[in-house]
Amino acid sequence: MQRPTSATLPLARDLIRAPSVTPDDGGAIGVLATALRGLGFDIVDLPFGEGAARTPNLFARLGRGSPHLCFAGHTDVVPAGEQGWTSGPFDAVIRDGRLYGRGACDMKGGIAAFVGAIDRYLSDGRPLAGSISLLITGDEEGPATHGTVRVLEWMRDHGQIPDFCLVGEPTNPEHLGDVIKIGRRGSLNARIVVPGIQGHVAYPHRADNPVHRLLAILAELTAVPLDDGTEWFEASSLQVTSIDVGNSATNVIPGRAEARLNIRFNDLHTGQGLAEWIASVCRTHAPAAEADVRISGEAFLTQPTAEVDMLVAAIRAVTGREPRLDTGGGTSDARFISRYCPVAEFGLVGASMHKVDEHASVADLEELTDIYASFLERLMR
Amino acid sequence: MQRPTSATLPLARDLIRAPSVTPDDGGAIGVLATALRGLGFDIVDLPFGEGAARTPNLFARLGRGSPHLCFAGHTDVVPAGEQGWTSGPFDAVIRDGRLYGRGACDMKGGIAAFVGAIDRYLSDGRPLAGSISLLITGDEEGPATHGTVRVLEWMRDHGQIPDFCLVGEPTNPEHLGDVIKIGRRGSLNARIVVPGIQGHVAYPHRADNPVHRLLAILAELTAVPLDDGTEWFEASSLQVTSIDVGNSATNVIPGRAEARLNIRFNDLHTGQGLAEWIASVCRTHAPAAEADVRISGEAFLTQPTAEVDMLVAAIRAVTGREPRLDTGGGTSDARFISRYCPVAEFGLVGASMHKVDEHASVADLEELTDIYASFLERLMR
Ligand SMILES: [Zn+2]
Ligand SMILES: [Zn+2]
Repeated sequence: MQRPTSATLPLARDLIRAPSVTPDDGGAIGVLATALRGLGFDIVDLPFGEGAARTPNLFARLGRGSPHLCFAGHTDVVPAGEQGWTSGPFDAVIRDGRLYGRGACDMKGGIAAFVGAIDRYLSDGRPLAGSISLLITGDEEGPATHGTVRVLEWMRDHGQIPDFCLVGEPTNPEHLGDVIKIGRRGSLNARIVVPGIQGHVAYPHRADNPVHRLLAILAELTAVPLDDGTEWFEASSLQVTSIDVGNSATNVIPGRAEARLNIRFNDLHTGQGLAEWIASVCRTHAPAAEADVRISGEAFLTQPTAEVDMLVAAIRAVTGREPRLDTGGGTSDARFISRYCPVAEFGLVGASMHKVDEHASVADLEELTDIYASFLERLMR
Repeated sequence: MQRPTSATLPLARDLIRAPSVTPDDGGAIGVLATALRGLGFDIVDLPFGEGAARTPNLFARLGRGSPHLCFAGHTDVVPAGEQGWTSGPFDAVIRDGRLYGRGACDMKGGIAAFVGAIDRYLSDGRPLAGSISLLITGDEEGPATHGTVRVLEWMRDHGQIPDFCLVGEPTNPEHLGDVIKIGRRGSLNARIVVPGIQGHVAYPHRADNPVHRLLAILAELTAVPLDDGTEWFEASSLQVTSIDVGNSATNVIPGRAEARLNIRFNDLHTGQGLAEWIASVCRTHAPAAEADVRISGEAFLTQPTAEVDMLVAAIRAVTGREPRLDTGGGTSDARFISRYCPVAEFGLVGASMHKVDEHASVADLEELTDIYASFLERLMR
């Protein structure tokens, strides 16, 4: 049986053809707004930031009823990068059953599939029991300062916080239906600088070797695993990514040593707690050390809800696959949304994201449309 | 009472005026040979090495009897260095009771004082009971490959190994008579390179962090002091002088980490033994690590001999000071001589050596002449 063609593929191609490399919009938000307006959505343009930091964002809502499902995503894409694309990165060429272009899977294809699912859901003539909204930002791949964070504040101030949020990031490593993300690990970077007193290696008592102090700090920080993981999270991991002294004189004790490290942490920790621990270990071994800690994101977890169960059921019904509930990988804007409501992430296969010849399978785009539509049916029933 | 003026000061000035920055001789060896020939010495020119590595050396001997005292030293000097000299580094200007110039204390002044002492000893008309030789190299400050090491081999092959060797390096930190060196610590440098497998910090199980392996190696190498020192030596010391990874990406586990360290070791250790220990610790924590160990010199000690007692007595008689027998500081050619005979080091005050405005006190030059002459009298009695 030939399924009716959805609105997904044409919209995905139109979105890719808008070259929206962060911080440029390239017309992408406008393409999406037009499609949503055609489905009856109320559109609110929400640009935040000034001058070069000005970020286009969009909030769109259809209906006022409950449950309120919000779909979150981004129209901006990473740069096309070096030469090597088989067809133009913004040409949206279809070849061998795949749609090629920057943003095809991350995540213009996912946005298009959700719009296609709404179109299908509404065209079946059913009344909308609850309401549907979209939180779309033009700055997820950049500093993300004036994007999702600011739109969520606006939503809070205007009574628009949803009951559940679905983020359309490409969560599947290989096959559509592999993985739903129900949380993410937190991440922090620390830079530790230890001052010392330079001197000749023959007279170490007249010097103060900062390398030895730094070694003591790093030995204590790496001595014991941070934890053994939890039901939903793998163990937190601390990786020392660089140590740099830059002393080429073999007979000189250097005057300064520096290290950098990254921690990916689960919800047994907070960024603040880890930062305090790092500072305290530094004080123990090098009172003059400076530890500069930047928290990129806190860990969060949506304990599997009824909505997650419905998403699993939709995926199982469409693909026959049993998706794994996962919390691994990098960070996404879901870390901001989790402060307001339960959130889960499910989208396309992400294997080609951020790479040359990024693509999405045309069949996957249709199946994802089916999954999102099935999820809407189960939720709005 | 005005002491009779020695031959020391004029010879020291003539030597400084020969700009013998390693590997150049600048005529210095010739100046010395002329002075020694005038005192009746037999001179043997012993250049070793070819081309750019050709090193001028001199062996001179007066008499054939026993005891045979050898004075060892070098005529080469380190470069004058940056601007900032009050008078020309090769002008040998006397100002405020000090002789200024490159090599004034390290160690043309010391050589001149020994020649001045021989001159005084002989001019008293006493017969020479034993014999006196000089082992002078033009490459102590450089690679030292074709200098003292080669002359000692020649001396061994020609029956010229002395009963005792006095090295005229500037051993005194502050006052003439502070310190006699009767040994030196050994020194080695090691460079440890640990390969790893690069990867993303979010997926540490797919990578192999070489920084963590290197930290484990360095933690074990620095965990316990190498020893507590001996009667004559301070404790051996291991100093990690640099760690370099050079990874600026905060989200990447690097593919390679490198460290350098120096060990100053006493005679409880050998360079070879320490090299094997380093290699074994590397193997434990990083089987693929490479440890490149260079032994600059082994530790050596001359257990205080009758000759050392006589040197102490001479210093006490001339200066009123009780010299400390010491084994600290850097390396010198005494490490090569110690393989053949007992050796002690005593010379001028070294505070200005290798620096701008290097100098020797004129009074010290005369007192060192007196000390060397007194030592000759006690030894040749
Ligand atoms: Zn994305
Ligand atoms: Zn010297």
